[in-house]
Amino acid sequence: MNQDDSLLKFEVPEIIYGLGALGKIGQCAKRLGGEKVFLVTDPGILAAGWIDETIKYLEQEDLEYVLYDNVVTNPRDFQVEQGVQLYLQKGCDVIVAVGGGSPIDTAKGVAILASNHGSISEYEGCNKIDQPIPPLVCAPTTAGTGADVTQFAVITDTRKRMKMTILSRAITPDISVVDPNLLKTKPPELIAATGMDTLTHAFEAYVSSLSWSMTDPHAIHAVELVAKHLVDAVKYRSLTALEGMSIACLEAGIAFSNAILGAVHALAHPLGGFYDIHHGVANAILLPAVVRRNIEHSIEKYARLAIAMGSDTRGMTQEEAAMSVLGCIDRLTDELQLPKKLSEVGVRRKDIPSMADRAQYDICMLTNPCTYEVDEIKNIYAEAW
Amino acid sequence: MNQDDSLLKFEVPEIIYGLGALGKIGQCAKRLGGEKVFLVTDPGILAAGWIDETIKYLEQEDLEYVLYDNVVTNPRDFQVEQGVQLYLQKGCDVIVAVGGGSPIDTAKGVAILASNHGSISEYEGCNKIDQPIPPLVCAPTTAGTGADVTQFAVITDTRKRMKMTILSRAITPDISVVDPNLLKTKPPELIAATGMDTLTHAFEAYVSSLSWSMTDPHAIHAVELVAKHLVDAVKYRSLTALEGMSIACLEAGIAFSNAILGAVHALAHPLGGFYDIHHGVANAILLPAVVRRNIEHSIEKYARLAIAMGSDTRGMTQEEAAMSVLGCIDRLTDELQLPKKLSEVGVRRKDIPSMADRAQYDICMLTNPCTYEVDEIKNIYAEAW
Repeated sequence: MNQDDSLLKFEVPEIIYGLGALGKIGQCAKRLGGEKVFLVTDPGILAAGWIDETIKYLEQEDLEYVLYDNVVTNPRDFQVEQGVQLYLQKGCDVIVAVGGGSPIDTAKGVAILASNHGSISEYEGCNKIDQPIPPLVCAPTTAGTGADVTQFAVITDTRKRMKMTILSRAITPDISVVDPNLLKTKPPELIAATGMDTLTHAFEAYVSSLSWSMTDPHAIHAVELVAKHLVDAVKYRSLTALEGMSIACLEAGIAFSNAILGAVHALAHPLGGFYDIHHGVANAILLPAVVRRNIEHSIEKYARLAIAMGSDTRGMTQEEAAMSVLGCIDRLTDELQLPKKLSEVGVRRKDIPSMADRAQYDICMLTNPCTYEVDEIKNIYAEAW
Repeated sequence: MNQDDSLLKFEVPEIIYGLGALGKIGQCAKRLGGEKVFLVTDPGILAAGWIDETIKYLEQEDLEYVLYDNVVTNPRDFQVEQGVQLYLQKGCDVIVAVGGGSPIDTAKGVAILASNHGSISEYEGCNKIDQPIPPLVCAPTTAGTGADVTQFAVITDTRKRMKMTILSRAITPDISVVDPNLLKTKPPELIAATGMDTLTHAFEAYVSSLSWSMTDPHAIHAVELVAKHLVDAVKYRSLTALEGMSIACLEAGIAFSNAILGAVHALAHPLGGFYDIHHGVANAILLPAVVRRNIEHSIEKYARLAIAMGSDTRGMTQEEAAMSVLGCIDRLTDELQLPKKLSEVGVRRKDIPSMADRAQYDICMLTNPCTYEVDEIKNIYAEAW
């Protein structure tokens, strides 16, 4: 990963957490030296009223702002490039993103181009960003992506129909303002999908070849919280469950930003690029197929994940304990009523070879506990199909 | 703690960890924009050869440097003030501290005065620092203090014979370079004392009224690592044990920087001010007396700490499990051959009332699970005497 193999790292934004934390967002932008805010969101968040509230807090600090809401799920390269034109033209000097992964990744893309120029595809890959980005404050509205605390941005290359992963310490946000209130307006199906994204982050970070003592406790705790709160968050949207999922997302994000991910994400990215399937749903479908193949390379860790998922592993061998994690995932997916097969979400079997060609070169494959040849990747897609 | 009661925070420097990490220290100072390094250490570290090595890495990056090693255990106000004169006179623009808590706290003091001016005692307390400090990189050489990752600095007011606690987000270092190799030259008695400091950090952060999901996993893991590695680190200085203690110190530091501390630290600070007793030894002596009184206010948490210490609590009531933590601490102190009474380290009984007067106003008392009147504090000192 373009760093000394023997060295490990841990980097996390400043986090402000709690009910009402959104009220601090103006102070945060101001504290980072901002005077004119580039405010990135999407139409759904705008309609939910959170932007009116955010603007109130910006105005309390006498901050000017420019609103940019041309953001869709799986955000596009041209939306980033259009955004940065507006950012520069209006003379903004700080970026505030309020939303899920899509607005936050769009904001990161705008931030990269604001100080590094060129086109966003030039920054795909690891550590391609030379110049520091403008100050960036995020307020996540979905407990899923973790983008508010990570050094990742995923932007769709519309020409190649491919999701580009950009990974650089330079794009870790400065401050994440995590207010569980913001989850209250989130539709249940989105809570389910993003919750499975969180679970996958935690799983992949925990078994990653770059996992370590600073990331492991967060990954395990995130899994415990998902097991405890995700179903309740979807069914009842109780504040306790939403708070649990907020923290799960935060901890999973911290874990995977520093330990990176694995094969589930490598295989999910082409699905987003080809079909525009929600990233959380893609992860949920692929997770069991990848775990089944990874398991022999990391038995002890999958056994620990099974315990975190609530499996009673007493009296089991390590192998049995590890295998029991598959039943836990299956039961959770059932309860969430999520699709379990790629064929259910419109994926064509004939696209598997092209998707496998792309998945094998995805950055996330590098930290999977084992490597997969392209034929094996096709088998995993086929198994999940 | 001068923030909205309902909001929680988490702030951690960038961490680079591993054998050989010290080799990155020049790059870190340069990446933060430095050209002339103010290099803070103490005579012991200098003699151990780590500064020669550090200077080599600074020179590899064409960085100039000014060495400042007028640092003692429990660092003094005048040493900070003398340091900042040199910093300003030589035109330094980045601070690198290599050492234990004393050089790092001295470096923080110099950093505060370099941009905020005045005398260091003006900054005692919470959030008194207005101006950002110069870039600060730390390389800890004792697995104890955690100062390399915290927003705390403790400096002795020589006129009042009192330790001043300075607590501000502004003094969190930018980067901590944690290289377990640096522990190899540390004397066993110092490993024991600083290890008990780490244990106390983790205990107090875990039961603190500001602890939360982001700090708890680190506190618990730190306790587990101390229980597993401290005795071996002292007896054999094996690299595995030193690595374990390095991470324990890091995680305990992250936990207490964000959750703050408790009564053990509030009572230990006057001991350092009055007698210049090593802070880790003071904590080790006071910990059991404070736990004994705190326990009824936080039974569940002390029971969890007992498990982390290795106590087999199966079949015990919650109360019994919590109480069993005292036996764990006692056995550990025995194995480390540390003093168990204040009278053994030269404390005069007649000083207890004055120390209690000071301890009651220490910042760390605010986050203890319960509050103590001055008479109760005297009783705790007397019990530990």
